This record gives sequence, C-alpha cells and structure tokens, in this order.
Amino acid sequence: MPSNPPSPPAPATPGAALADVDTPALLIDLDAFEANLAQVHAQAHAAGVRVRPHAKAHKSPDIARRQLAAGAQGICCQKLGEAEVFAGAGIDDILVTNEIVGTSKARRAAQLASRIRLALCVDHALQVRQLGEAAQAEDSRLNVLIEVDVGQGRCGVESPEQALALARDIASFAPALRFAGLHAYHGGAQHLRTPAERAAAIAAACQRTRAVVALLAAHGIACETVTGAGTGTYGLEAASGLYTEVQPGSYVLMDTDYAANQPEPHWPVLRHALSGWCSVISRRASHAVLDGGLKAFATDHGLPRVLLEGWRVDGLSDEHTVIVPTTAGAAPLAVGDKLRLLPGHCDPTVNLHDWLVALRGEQVEAVWPVAARGALF
Amino acid sequence: MPSNPPSPPAPATPGAALADVDTPALLIDLDAFEANLAQVHAQAHAAGVRVRPHAKAHKSPDIARRQLAAGAQGICCQKLGEAEVFAGAGIDDILVTNEIVGTSKARRAAQLASRIRLALCVDHALQVRQLGEAAQAEDSRLNVLIEVDVGQGRCGVESPEQALALARDIASFAPALRFAGLHAYHGGAQHLRTPAERAAAIAAACQRTRAVVALLAAHGIACETVTGAGTGTYGLEAASGLYTEVQPGSYVLMDTDYAANQPEPHWPVLRHALSGWCSVISRRASHAVLDGGLKAFATDHGLPRVLLEGWRVDGLSDEHTVIVPTTAGAAPLAVGDKLRLLPGHCDPTVNLHDWLVALRGEQVEAVWPVAARGALF
Repeated sequence: MPSNPPSPPAPATPGAALADVDTPALLIDLDAFEANLAQVHAQAHAAGVRVRPHAKAHKSPDIARRQLAAGAQGICCQKLGEAEVFAGAGIDDILVTNEIVGTSKARRAAQLASRIRLALCVDHALQVRQLGEAAQAEDSRLNVLIEVDVGQGRCGVESPEQALALARDIASFAPALRFAGLHAYHGGAQHLRTPAERAAAIAAACQRTRAVVALLAAHGIACETVTGAGTGTYGLEAASGLYTEVQPGSYVLMDTDYAANQPEPHWPVLRHALSGWCSVISRRASHAVLDGGLKAFATDHGLPRVLLEGWRVDGLSDEHTVIVPTTAGAAPLAVGDKLRLLPGHCDPTVNLHDWLVALRGEQVEAVWPVAARGALF
Repeated sequence: MPSNPPSPPAPATPGAALADVDTPALLIDLDAFEANLAQVHAQAHAAGVRVRPHAKAHKSPDIARRQLAAGAQGICCQKLGEAEVFAGAGIDDILVTNEIVGTSKARRAAQLASRIRLALCVDHALQVRQLGEAAQAEDSRLNVLIEVDVGQGRCGVESPEQALALARDIASFAPALRFAGLHAYHGGAQHLRTPAERAAAIAAACQRTRAVVALLAAHGIACETVTGAGTGTYGLEAASGLYTEVQPGSYVLMDTDYAANQPEPHWPVLRHALSGWCSVISRRASHAVLDGGLKAFATDHGLPRVLLEGWRVDGLSDEHTVIVPTTAGAAPLAVGDKLRLLPGHCDPTVNLHDWLVALRGEQVEAVWPVAARGALF
C-alpha cells in the first residue's frame, strides 16, 4: 500500500492576529457563524422538525460538534468516506444522502454501521442487494432511505410504485436492512431567486413525496423519516407538516450565490461567515494580483467578491486572482497588503483547503482541520 | 499547533485490475504519459534548450523523478509550499515561477535555499528586500529571476528600465541574492487556438524580452537564463534563439482545453494520459448519474468529456455528474458500470485528488500520491 501524502501545515496558530495569518487561507467569522447556527436551529425547532446539518459544506468535525451542541439530531454526509472521517471524530448518527454502489463500498458501509447509527439512500434494487448482503455478512444494521426525485432530476425513484417495490426489497433483507423513510431533496429549488419560485418548487416536491408516503401507508409501510431541504428553502420544508427533518449545510458559512437569493420576509438574515484571505503579490496602476486563484476558490457558482471598497475580481488563474479598481476612489492597495474575498460557492471552496481559521474579531480563536477534504469515495 | 488532518486512502493497489479501482479516481495511461514525455523533451533538446517541467500540473514527485530521468534540468513550482514538498522528496533544483511576499515566506525560501538550488521571481523592490534580508539572515544563496510581463497582463515588470532598477536592487544583496535571468511566460498564448495566433504572441513576447536583455547587457548585466513557455507554445520559445529553458507542464497529462488548440504541423501529437474514473450510481431512461462532480473535476476550462460512445456531460453538482445519451445508439450503461471522462483542465483537477492511479493497459502499475496537493502558501 503506498504511504499517504502529508497535509499542508496550518496557516495560523490560535492566539495569532489576523494580520499574521498566512495567505491564501479560509477565515471563519465566529460571531457570524454562531448567529447563523442559533437562528436556523431555532427556526426549525420552533416548526417542530429536527435539524441534520449537511457536513459536505464544511467537512469539519469541529463545526459538526458545534451543530450537535446546538441541538442537531446528527449530520448528513454526501460520501461514505466523509462519514468514515466524521465517525472517526466521534459523530455517531450520520445519514449519507446519496446512493453508493459496489461491493467494496457496501462492505465499508456495513462495517461503519456496526460502530454508529448509519443511514444511506437507494433508488435501485442493486444498491439494496449489495447493502443487504454486506450488512448480513457483517451482522450489522443499516438504515435505508428511499430517495424520491422531487424535482432535482438527478437520482431518486420517479413513482410511488417504484418506491413500493424498493421498500419490499429492503424488507426482504430485514433485520440487516431497516426501511427508515424517504430522502426528498430538491437541490435546484435552493437557488431559485424569488420566494414565490421557491415556494412553488417545494409545494410540488411535497406533493410528489406525499403520493409516495400514501402508497406505502396503503401497504402498511410507515415512513418514520422524511428528510431533505437546504439553506435556500429549509423553512418551507420545516413548515410543510410532511418533512420531519431538514438538512441545511451552507447556512453556517454562506456564499455569494446564496446571498443572491431574494430573502424570505420572516426568516433570519444569514451572514457571510466564510471568507478567503489573500496577499497582494504584484501591483500596477491597472490592477493588483492576489496569491490565491482557482486552487483556492471554486468558481462554478461565480467569481469571488472582493471585500474592499472600489475593487472587483477580473479573473482567476490557477494560483492568481487579478482584481481591478472600479472607481477613482478605490481603497489604496500595495504589494504585501492582505484582504478578504467572499467565495462564490462555499462547499467546493472549503474542499480546496486543509484548514479553517476561526476568528473572534481580528484574533485567531481556533484552527480547524478540514478533516473530510478530498473524501471522494 | 493543531494536528494535521489525515489524507484519504488510495483507491487502488499496484497489481489490481482497472475494474477494481475504486471511484471516483484519476487514472494515468502510462503508455501515453511516457510517449508525451519522450517526444516533448526530444523536441526541446533538439532545439538546444533545457526542459524544466512545471510541477503545478501534476504535484507528484513520482512524475517529477520521471521527468528528471528524461533529461529535465529541474522542475518549476508555482508555490513555495509545493517547492518544499518536492525538495522533501529529493528534487534539488527548483524554480518558483511566481512572486512571494511577506517575511515569513521569505524566511522559508531562504531556509529551503540552504538545502537545494532554489530560484524565485520578483517584480517589485519589496520582494527583493524581503528575500535579500532573509537570505542574509540564514546565510543562504537565493537565485532571483526578474519576471517580465510579455503579454500575460498579470505579474511582471512592464519596462526594461524597471528591470534594470530591480537587477541593481538584487545586486545590492549579493552574495545572498544572485541575479539569474528573466522569467518571461505568456500564459494566455498557450490557449490561442491557431498556430498563427500563437506564433504572433510569442514573437511579441520575444521582442519585449529582448529589449530587457539588451538594456541589462548595456549595463554589464548578463541574463544567464531566459525561461518561460507552456504546453501550447514550447516549440516556439525553444526555436526563438532567446529562451534557454522551457517550462511545459500539462504536456505529460493533457486535457480537453489543450486538445482544442489547432495542432502545430511538425510537433509531436500529445495524447490524453489523464482521465477520471467514475461509477454509475443512478440510471433512468433520460440520463445516468456518476459518483464524481465538482469536487472531482475542475470545470473552469469547460466540462469533462465522457469517453463512451453516444454520451455527453449534461452538468455537474458537488458530488455528481449527470450524463445524457446523444444518439439512439448510445452504449448501454447500468447502475454499477464504470467509465472514463477527460478533464477540462488538468491542473486544478489533479489538485482535487490525493492519488494518481498509473495504469499499464488495464492493470494498475503504481499509485502515486499527489504530494503537493493543497500546497497553497
């Protein structure tokens, strides 16, 4: 077996001043982070639903522990490898909101299920059979949710009849497999820009999900859990009377894409807690060049935004971002200066970094490893 | 100091069959890799220039060692942290083709220069002063190149006079700093689509660089090294009579963006050696869903391309790629099947992975760690 590569060193130590944090790095504003956390959990709990935050957004056991301390039921992961990392860090209730395939992964899932409460999603009989045989072989208990396509157009069963057939497949592997309910996540709805569009999308998702719940109930199969939702819509699912659990992920960090949504009138206003921290390495009259580029900021949901008056991002290459002044009164900027940028999309940006530097004001309070970074399989 | 996060396990072991490589993963076709390596080095050596391959493309000491064995002078890195990783793996001649700023990085550079032959780029007096004072304090010898902006419009001095002033700054720190020549890289020229456009861009780059060489020579300062070029243009710089060294990086791996260039008539045809390896985790009549998305493939230079007849990529989300059939005769595809995709941009794609699975035909010959992945600062 080849030996594992080393991780890069941390860009800061606790107690350091922000000015001394090495660049490029990712910063978390703890005041904003804690406010986002408390407000979203309070809103969901007031609506009577559980919160199971999605850890794919932050990949950090330190953040997951704070979410659990704030009343979360457990966490979601998108990959089995992520779940293994979080389980290794002591998180004992994990839903993998995704299908896995292959006997090797099924065996890993069954082994993990002997250590923690683990649930996974299925939308095909092959996945059920592989998980069932693996859980029987390991003598473990796997919770299985059927994923329903509620408008995302990606994974998930398309009809109540398909769900019923899969629920019977799952039952045939009892007690190794246990049918735990439905995963009904509408990712596209999170980024619809107006409250009316989001409300219509989640109403349609509820209608599809209710049809599945009803057919299963007519055959004596109860859906103990109906889970889904993200940062753009969690209040809608929470108020639906159908969902028992919501899965927001970005809410603790926030990015410019979510900020582009028109806000819901009575929901908490979430603050940008995550920012990139870069140095100016080159400067001329027309532009400045920063020391973080495509390998520090994901650009799939748009360019990062400069948090400095009178500047905007012009473009990124592998390790550089070029920023340009937009007004004659742009803030002065010299070689060696450091500044913040807001990422366009927090999830894949965090996945480019090994560390999150948690700040209280202008001082480093903690440095958190992105322990599940790169957990692809 | 916080303890470092673990790296994910390898997706395969040497000797395994391709079919058993876990997904998602990155594969290297060794026959294509070796042919690319031999042909580009032969072309450059025939033109009388040295090859200093850019390791930011692969971040792999195993690949760097093969490049050195094929006659490379040393390697390029884009980050000091990358150089530290490669030096730790035994590579002893490294050019960081970038400016660094800050006393902390300058000290690290000076320390590294006491172990290997290290060169860095400058375009501002502050960088020279920080490097000079650090090298004096560490009693080490740093080679310094002046970066000239030859059309990229990013870093680099804009005039021969600026270069002359910087060369004098460098000389004032002798013997701690040693002026080693010019870095004259035109990144934008690599991706111009026609040979005529690329030839015009590199001719202009040579003109700007010659003006700098001439002014320095008139003041008794020799440019021992003129270095630059990438995979799209290396033959032009090699044939210029001006450049002493070329820095191709992508040539050993290749991606779909480079393949979109119209080829140069008499240059070697480079083959795609890098591909992604994914499993189908969900399937319906309209599409199939793969288990690698934005966290497995960089999309800044376009979507990955499916290497399976009659299919194309429709879109990516964090951990999924949706592919759709383009013809009625699309190859059959079922849940659990595995297939290859060509990345749009190899450099940031490799940086998303911890391992490269090197294949001889359909068998794993080696598994190489992406040891400098995430080396951001």
